[in-house]
Order: sequence, then C-alpha cells, then structure tokens
Amino acid sequence: MNILSDKEIKLPSGYTFCGFFSGFKKCGDADTAMICCPGGAQWAGVFTRNRVKAHCVVRNEQLLDSGGVVKAIIANSGNANACTGKAGEDANQALAREAAQFLGCEADEVLTASTGVIGVPLPTGLAATALEKGLGTPAAEPDRFLQAAEAIMTTDTVRKTASVSFSAGGRQYTLSGMTKGSGMIHPNMGTMLAFLCTDFPLPPSLLQSTLKLVVDDTFNMISVDGDTSTNDMVLLLSPAETYKAMSEGSDDIYPFRSALHALCEYLAVSIAADGEGAGKLLRCSVSGASNLIEARRLAKGVIGSSLVKCAFFGEDANWGRIIAAMGYSGSEFDPDGVSIAFCRFDGSGEIHLMEEGSPVPFSEEDAAKLLGEKEIEIRINLHDGSASARAWGCDLSYEYVKINGDYRT
Amino acid sequence: MNILSDKEIKLPSGYTFCGFFSGFKKCGDADTAMICCPGGAQWAGVFTRNRVKAHCVVRNEQLLDSGGVVKAIIANSGNANACTGKAGEDANQALAREAAQFLGCEADEVLTASTGVIGVPLPTGLAATALEKGLGTPAAEPDRFLQAAEAIMTTDTVRKTASVSFSAGGRQYTLSGMTKGSGMIHPNMGTMLAFLCTDFPLPPSLLQSTLKLVVDDTFNMISVDGDTSTNDMVLLLSPAETYKAMSEGSDDIYPFRSALHALCEYLAVSIAADGEGAGKLLRCSVSGASNLIEARRLAKGVIGSSLVKCAFFGEDANWGRIIAAMGYSGSEFDPDGVSIAFCRFDGSGEIHLMEEGSPVPFSEEDAAKLLGEKEIEIRINLHDGSASARAWGCDLSYEYVKINGDYRT
Repeated sequence: MNILSDKEIKLPSGYTFCGFFSGFKKCGDADTAMICCPGGAQWAGVFTRNRVKAHCVVRNEQLLDSGGVVKAIIANSGNANACTGKAGEDANQALAREAAQFLGCEADEVLTASTGVIGVPLPTGLAATALEKGLGTPAAEPDRFLQAAEAIMTTDTVRKTASVSFSAGGRQYTLSGMTKGSGMIHPNMGTMLAFLCTDFPLPPSLLQSTLKLVVDDTFNMISVDGDTSTNDMVLLLSPAETYKAMSEGSDDIYPFRSALHALCEYLAVSIAADGEGAGKLLRCSVSGASNLIEARRLAKGVIGSSLVKCAFFGEDANWGRIIAAMGYSGSEFDPDGVSIAFCRFDGSGEIHLMEEGSPVPFSEEDAAKLLGEKEIEIRINLHDGSASARAWGCDLSYEYVKINGDYRT
Repeated sequence: MNILSDKEIKLPSGYTFCGFFSGFKKCGDADTAMICCPGGAQWAGVFTRNRVKAHCVVRNEQLLDSGGVVKAIIANSGNANACTGKAGEDANQALAREAAQFLGCEADEVLTASTGVIGVPLPTGLAATALEKGLGTPAAEPDRFLQAAEAIMTTDTVRKTASVSFSAGGRQYTLSGMTKGSGMIHPNMGTMLAFLCTDFPLPPSLLQSTLKLVVDDTFNMISVDGDTSTNDMVLLLSPAETYKAMSEGSDDIYPFRSALHALCEYLAVSIAADGEGAGKLLRCSVSGASNLIEARRLAKGVIGSSLVKCAFFGEDANWGRIIAAMGYSGSEFDPDGVSIAFCRFDGSGEIHLMEEGSPVPFSEEDAAKLLGEKEIEIRINLHDGSASARAWGCDLSYEYVKINGDYRT
C-alpha cells in the first residue's frame, strides 16, 4: 500500500479543510481546524477509555449513539476543555454552534475536539470572531488540509498527515488522515486526535466495527509515557449520500480495510516517533505468543517501561529490563521459552541477547553500533503459539522531563 | 511509635550481622551482607509477583513452603542473578552453601537474596573466599548491622535502616530492619530487598499473614518508576525457640503489628525519598473512597504517572494530570465528586485546586511556594465512602534518565 506523506498528500473528493488562529493558544500559532463534508458524512469514532472524559468526548459519544450525519469537525488546540464543569460543557456546545452558524448547518451536525491543558475553561466566541473575519475559509486544497493538521498541534514538533489511494469495485478511492500527539500518549481506544476522511462509500453497518478493529492494532499499540489522555479520539468520515446511491452489498470492503490499516499504522507510528523528547523510535515485535491479547500486552508492556526507555536513550543493551517488563506486564508466559533480539526495522544487524530463557554472549561493539541507530526493533519470540503483535514507542530523555516540567505555564 | 533511625539503631537480641566486599561489584564497595540467627528463626517472606523471578526468589519461596527454621540470610548486591538459566540456579545454591559452610549449618537453613544487573551469571566462590579471609565476621553490634545495610545498596544514595522498640505482655522487644531500593521500584508484593528481625516470639500461625497485611499497606504503596523488579522480597525473622517456650495463646500481637507497620512504612518511604534522581518526596493521600482497593489503586495511579512526576519536578501546579491519571487507573469513581488539594506533609499550606469536579481558582504565588518544598502531599477526596489509602513516590528528573541511561555499563 503506497502511503503518500504530507507534501504529496492527496485528498478524497467531497471534503474541504482549513486551519486558522482563533486565540486558544497564547503564542499566536494556528489553533483551530475545520474538516467539512458539505454533502454530509456518515461517521465512526473511538474515544478514550479514561474514566475522566473531556466534554468533546462525551458529546461526540452521544452524537454517535443517536446516529446522525455530520457536516464538519471543529477542533481546537491549546485547551483540552476537560474537567471544566458545566461552564466547559456549555463552551463545548458553543464551539459546535459557532462552526454550524458559519457553515449554515445544525450544531448537531458538527463534531468537536479539543487538546491542550486540562482544567482551564474554554473561552467562547473566539472561533466565531475568527471565522467572521474570514481567517478560516474551508477549501478542497492540500494546503488547507496541511493548515488544519498544523492547527491541532501542541507539543508536536512535526505535522502528521498522510493519504493512501486504493481501488475497490473497479474505482479509485482516497483515504486521508491527520493526527496529533506527542505527550500523554498511551491510547486506550483512540489516540490524542486523529481525523480520517475518505470518499469510499462504506456500508454503515461496518463503519464503526472496522475503525475499532484497526485502531486496536495501530493507535492503541503506541505509548510515549503511559499516560492515557482525557481527550483521545479517532474520527472517520465517509460520504453518506454516495453510499445510499450504491446497492447494499456492493461491499468490496477489503481494499478499504487494508488502506485504513496502513494509514492508521503510519499515523500512529508518526506519533511515537515524535514522542516528547524522543530521540529514537522503538518497535517491539512479539511473535510465538499463545494468543493476540497476550502478544499485545507484552509488546505494550515492554514499550512502556521507563527503564527500558532510559536504556535505549543511553544506548545500553540492558535486555534484563525487557524481560523484567514482560514479567510484570500481567501476561502469562513461560520465561524459559523467551528469546530476545535487537535489530534494525528492516531486520538487519540482528543481535541475539537471550535464547529460550538463557542469556547469550554478544558483541558489545555490534550492540553499540545498532543502538546508535534512530530506529530499533526489540524482537521477542515466546515459542508458545502463532499469535503476534507490534507496539511502538520511544526513548525517555532529559528533554521529555524538561518539556513536561513546565508545560502548563 | 518511636522510630530509631540509622545511627541510633537498636538491635533485637539473638541476631548477628556483617557486611563485606566479596567482588560482586567492580567498584570495591561492600557487596555482601549476612544476617544470622544462630538460635534459629521462624520466618515469613513476601516476594515479587513479576512472572520472571530471580533464582533467589524461587528458592526462598520453596523453602517457605517447606516450613523449616533458618539461621541466616546472605545477600549480594551488584548482580541480580535473574534470567541466568541453570548456571544461575546453581550459583544461587552455591551462595547459600558458602554461607552455611562458614556458619556450620545446613544450606537449607540459609536464605539468599540478590540485587543488581539482570542476566549476568553470578560468580561462585567469591563469598566463600572473602569469609575464609575473615572479611566478614558476624557480630551483634550496631556498626555491623549498618555495614550489612550498606552492602546491599546499588544506586541507593543513602543507607536505609531503622528500629522500633515496643512492649507486649509486660516485656520489651525490638524490631529492626534494613532495606534497599532506588530504581526498578514499583513493588507488587515486596520491594527490592528488606530484611526485618525481631526478638518478639510471634505465633507461627500469624507470622506470614501479618507480614503480608503490613507489606500491602507500606512497601506495596511506593513507586519510583513503575518497573516491578524480578528480585523484590521482604523477609521477617522471629526467634523460633523462644516462641516454643511460651504458651500458645500468649498472643499479645497488636503492639508487634503496630511496630511492624511503623517500621515498614518508615523504610518504604525512605526508598521513595531516595528514588533514583528524586528531588522531592510525594505522598498521595486518597480519602472518601468506596473501598480500600479503589483507594489504593487511585493513590498508586497518581504517584506512578510520568506526567504528574514531571510536573512536580518542574514545580508546576498542573493538577489536570492528576485527574487524568485517576481516570486511567482502572478505578471506578465519579469524576464529579472529586476534590484535589496540595499541602505539606503536616497539612499546612493547603491549596485547593478542584472541588467536587470543578476547577477552583488558586494563587499561583502560593502554589509556587508550596511546590518549592521537598515533601508535598497530593490530597484527594472522592466523597463516596470512608475508605482511604496513601502512596509514596517522587518526581521524575533529568537525573533519573541519566542514571538509567547507562546503569549496566
């Protein structure tokens, strides 16, 4: 599947985009994004499983339950509007109304998303004023899509977008997505924010289940710091009318599912690579597990260990921390069956550290060379079955501590 | 309960101690400790729940099951002897035999404990040679006790010992303990290493259950980095013969239990305060919970969040990260009932940040003053019941990353 990243981005027909400055951020950077589907979109969404949910998450979940078509997503950065009480709930509703008024649709046809500091009431009227001034004019242009992707960034150091084209039933379709996230990343359902849109007319009955399946294997398999946000969400839009025009059952969904998987994995990995303070992208690949749940639990357990992350930061082949992290992950496995190796993402430079439960002598020189790379795979085989999983994370650096020592102020 | 710390240490009768250099550490510091009870001790132990267990943990668990009396503990630092295969299992057995030979007892009367790097086979014969040379001569002297406590240190910056005296049944008894631990601290049963000995003749039927109860409330409520070690253990020795001489039922166990709780809490908190790279000791106190399990889960969830720890390092009153951490802790609570405040350990300087689900305006100046302190309490009330719990941890600093970037080499 050929992923087109950022500057080469290709857009599905039927959508418009913009990104602009409303005043949610103090620094003056773009802080408001709109993704519009004037023809109306059916949609799916997965949301944080954090017990404490931001107002935008609660409202979108309600809208998903009631099952209507949407015409836009409005997202702001710089303020998470979580834990802000009744005033925050009203402010979230106001944000949807401000976008709806500008676009000429109903407030219930607008989804909201917020990211930033928790606990500070979201100011109202900022987006409306910016839109009245003509600062945000949605258009079907790649530049506008990239502006929108920039407007949802917080501590991200790079904009994260990609698209993929695929054919189904003899026609060409496009799926495009943007995401953001760098800290408070340990998604449990969705990740910070990801918005995906396609011109593929997905059967409504499969929309939500397909997104859920793919997110479990992609966005839910990354961790920067083990902190699950209150605002995580992944939204997927697909044209509503086009589907109705097609006969039910013209269901060539597999090419779409492959495209969705490839795009979500690409965007999820881009979050791990841009983890706060990250110098290295880590991938933990577990094979030979008795089942998928165990494989995922182990891969995420290793990627989430502070000590493992520090060892990679220090370029130290301290594989004992990997087996220790596996041990406390909650997974049931036989330590005597475990093999551990490090290698590059393309499989080259493999160094065996543990073979079926026993340490293996290795060359410190080779290890130092491999650990100097920017992308490193931790390869684990349990020799206990045929299930496998991969998780992505990053090293833990001084910079992470610095970024998070004074984020709020 | 009057805790006597370190230099004022008081020892129970019937025990001898020593700490010496065998060669497990490269730096030449003392790396071997012995705690001896020539008259024989009944004992209790709690061990790591990590699926991957060091050889010393496996062997001690087996000895606990078979129920015999012990005459010594031998502990080495500098090498964890975990994940070292059959060779490591034999080396662990050899360590017990070397101590037994010197002391003139059976190998099965000697418990072993190891701490240090995982995955490196433990050399044998080092302790035997040092003992033959007369480097380790156990004696009932406070100085020897302190030497033993030093010999189990790894990245610890301070020796951690304490004792407490109490009266029961009209007699005076003493309970003394030493512990070590600084990184890979997120105990799930015991902590890195803690050895406790008393001259109180505890009823054997209560020995294990009492230790377990107390450890759950003390050592299991601290976290430095969320990494549960493969080697955690807490061992408690109590004279075997004295108890037999007493009538069954002269069971004034409550003063002992209070003493054990006070000592374990003191030692556990000393580990959190000496967490790798820690500049601040944090205490999270949860009240108003519906039950004890929820209260503990929330307190540990907050103390374990990387983002919360970074905020305290940066002296930033970012309380949103606290409610977010509560939300993903797995606890079932109503976010609208939550109040959060910061204060000193003595309760002074309290700053209210959230009241029953809504943010409260606070003085940044007062917050900055409080957050400049070395000991800070996070006070959470759920307004949902009468259960409470406390957990201890520390901030996450550049120094933690530095220490763990090159621990092994």
